Amino acid sequence: MILESLRKQVLEAILELVRRGLVVDTFGNASGISREKNLVAIKPSGVAYDTLRPEDLVVTDLEGRTIEGSLRASSDLPTHLALYKAFPEIGGIAHTHSRSATAWAQAQREIPCFGTTHADYFRGAVPVTEPLNSEEIESDYEWNTGQAIVRRLAGIGPLSMPAVLVASHAPFCWGSSAAEAAHVAWMLEEVAQMALATLTINSEAPQLPNVLRDKHFLRKHGASAYYGQKTAKP
Amino acid sequence: MILESLRKQVLEAILELVRRGLVVDTFGNASGISREKNLVAIKPSGVAYDTLRPEDLVVTDLEGRTIEGSLRASSDLPTHLALYKAFPEIGGIAHTHSRSATAWAQAQREIPCFGTTHADYFRGAVPVTEPLNSEEIESDYEWNTGQAIVRRLAGIGPLSMPAVLVASHAPFCWGSSAAEAAHVAWMLEEVAQMALATLTINSEAPQLPNVLRDKHFLRKHGASAYYGQKTAKP
Amino acid sequence: MILESLRKQVLEAILELVRRGLVVDTFGNASGISREKNLVAIKPSGVAYDTLRPEDLVVTDLEGRTIEGSLRASSDLPTHLALYKAFPEIGGIAHTHSRSATAWAQAQREIPCFGTTHADYFRGAVPVTEPLNSEEIESDYEWNTGQAIVRRLAGIGPLSMPAVLVASHAPFCWGSSAAEAAHVAWMLEEVAQMALATLTINSEAPQLPNVLRDKHFLRKHGASAYYGQKTAKP
Amino acid sequence: MILESLRKQVLEAILELVRRGLVVDTFGNASGISREKNLVAIKPSGVAYDTLRPEDLVVTDLEGRTIEGSLRASSDLPTHLALYKAFPEIGGIAHTHSRSATAWAQAQREIPCFGTTHADYFRGAVPVTEPLNSEEIESDYEWNTGQAIVRRLAGIGPLSMPAVLVASHAPFCWGSSAAEAAHVAWMLEEVAQMALATLTINSEAPQLPNVLRDKHFLRKHGASAYYGQKTAKP
Repeated sequence: MILESLRKQVLEAILELVRRGLVVDTFGNASGISREKNLVAIKPSGVAYDTLRPEDLVVTDLEGRTIEGSLRASSDLPTHLALYKAFPEIGGIAHTHSRSATAWAQAQREIPCFGTTHADYFRGAVPVTEPLNSEEIESDYEWNTGQAIVRRLAGIGPLSMPAVLVASHAPFCWGSSAAEAAHVAWMLEEVAQMALATLTINSEAPQLPNVLRDKHFLRKHGASAYYGQKTAKP
Repeated sequence: MILESLRKQVLEAILELVRRGLVVDTFGNASGISREKNLVAIKPSGVAYDTLRPEDLVVTDLEGRTIEGSLRASSDLPTHLALYKAFPEIGGIAHTHSRSATAWAQAQREIPCFGTTHADYFRGAVPVTEPLNSEEIESDYEWNTGQAIVRRLAGIGPLSMPAVLVASHAPFCWGSSAAEAAHVAWMLEEVAQMALATLTINSEAPQLPNVLRDKHFLRKHGASAYYGQKTAKP
Repeated sequence: MILESLRKQVLEAILELVRRGLVVDTFGNASGISREKNLVAIKPSGVAYDTLRPEDLVVTDLEGRTIEGSLRASSDLPTHLALYKAFPEIGGIAHTHSRSATAWAQAQREIPCFGTTHADYFRGAVPVTEPLNSEEIESDYEWNTGQAIVRRLAGIGPLSMPAVLVASHAPFCWGSSAAEAAHVAWMLEEVAQMALATLTINSEAPQLPNVLRDKHFLRKHGASAYYGQKTAKP
Repeated sequence: MILESLRKQVLEAILELVRRGLVVDTFGNASGISREKNLVAIKPSGVAYDTLRPEDLVVTDLEGRTIEGSLRASSDLPTHLALYKAFPEIGGIAHTHSRSATAWAQAQREIPCFGTTHADYFRGAVPVTEPLNSEEIESDYEWNTGQAIVRRLAGIGPLSMPAVLVASHAPFCWGSSAAEAAHVAWMLEEVAQMALATLTINSEAPQLPNVLRDKHFLRKHGASAYYGQKTAKP
């Protein structure tokens, strides 16, 4: 079995999504990439989470060809591949239909940056993709979904904004590893839930000023981080 | 004991409804039909779920006559029978008062098809029945409830739209088996909850265009399905 | 120890409130009455639920004098006594600050009878008391709370409407026993939660027509009941 | 190890915040003060709650210098110190990003005193701080957050109003001990959740008249308290 360690990391990320209650039915998957080998390990399609083993994951190349594995890969594989190709700085991807984040995606509204909880993870409002047109839906749907995400992120560093809402669908999240991507998926759901409640209390609630947004984002991320026990990340 | 296997399937479906938190108090039941023998197995009325055994289920014919069983059948039996008679393609029925789906039924609003989660299970907005008139309420109430569902589904394949909201009451769901009906009841609740949140965020949220709705529905159902590990269903 | 059986019933009702998640902090109590002896068993004030024993309950007469028990009775005792005096048909009372029912009480809005789940337990909208005036608050507050409930129920049978929302406070519920009162408290919370969601979906949602409301209420209660396994109650 | 008893109390308060579901990710901390020694014990920054031991807590003086402990203190330490200096009557502080209270903070709306549950803990609406200006954010951010809280509480006894919402951030709560602060954090979340639901039902819901607010607050707090089993606190 190749990429055993990556397989285990991805499996652990998938189980974390389930434990956090982010997965409805089988609507949740994760993947990780070995940049050295240009290979991706991803969840198989429609398999029950509680029996999943590392060897059940599917390993593919960046063109989606199965390199190892007897099961069919997640139907969202082409979306994952589009992101790995466009964002060389990311190492893992998580996709869920978590309740509140999906509601924002369905509402086709970006999640406003209402508070410091949000700014600790996302440097600004979490964006929504443009809806796909009929042609994009009818052929290469999952690949085109990835392209819509990439277009929406144009000009934004994917590690400053590690999530996008796919319009009428649900969020995709990423990070330096599958574990980080799963953590972002959890934080996104929390932030989405709070934003919905915020809007209910005050439909005119203000977003954070940039100085406060950056204070919090940079307190946790980048060269000047001073949160937690570790020294700042490079 | 006749129909032991069907009884067990129905019991398992009932317990799945309970495990998923879809049942409030004793407001939940399920049934299954043997098309070969034209017999239905259904939950007894008002009995605690945690002590229910296969032999407690009531087996009736399609006219509602008890064939085997010492308990009284669910008071909703006539509704189930109306559906089995009208929809020969279904094999099981589940009825719950799950919180969000019931709220939509009480609001007398169909659940709009806001996202792909919805379209993976329901090919369009989940419809609401017309309210019953006084006569229909006063005599044969449960049978007339079934008739209202059948009328509302006219021209729609029951496997394309495996649920209906009974106005001012709650959902009825069905599928090829009791297990599938229970699964639909769960998905309906999830979809209903997300739709409520979607509406709260954006009261003008758009429904899916037909091409996207069908892309998702047909990805999972019918001859061209490519989701999961099984080959497409016929 | 007198009234051991009643003490146990009341304790069990209190624990049921806790198990159902209806109790916030120590905001929940229950009592039961022996009509034969004109004695009431009630929860002591501000005691942790998980260590409560039958002998900790306080037994008082209808004037609130402690007959047996070394602890102080719930501060809401005078409210309970007012209800036992006014409603000879009730045998138990439960009081909670359950989240959704309390929200309706705080909003000073009756809970509309939006669905059959509601009508199975409450024969119409669940009413709200008039706010107390300053005098009523400043002296004999808890007794006056009971009087406000009794005034609000004037002309309504307490077993047809086994709950009232005390304005700006929370619900009081009752039944033929403490167990039934606790069950009503649970159903009230479920109904209150669904009604809030219903209102969010459709601010013009209609209440049940009387014929449907009575169909459901009388299917479960009274001489013609046909729900469950028992024969109709007298 | 100094202040072992205080360390244990603070750790227990932190774990109570986690058990009550008030902590999202690592967004939650608590501290306690020894007034005799003028030393504070506080949670270390960004450490997992489930492995935290009394010796992991950081003990500092009122200027924030570490007196004992090898880990970095919570980044919110300066906020805690500002409160301990300004409010000599408090003995413990708890900070969470609990969902509903944080939503009110993000909405920059005080939590109205809609009910007696609220008045039992907070003598009036729970206030929101003024937003910080750019200078206050850019240098000594956490200390300035504490100053904004202190300014907002001017003229209000901190034990009559044991919580404040920091605008666009989250609540800070306090009490005579870390345990009480954690209890207030829990009650605040419950009250915030009920207030949101109240507002959804009736956007014109009235706040309690002062006489009712004080009746409840003083029933539990101060010289005339008559709730629970203890005699009134001095």
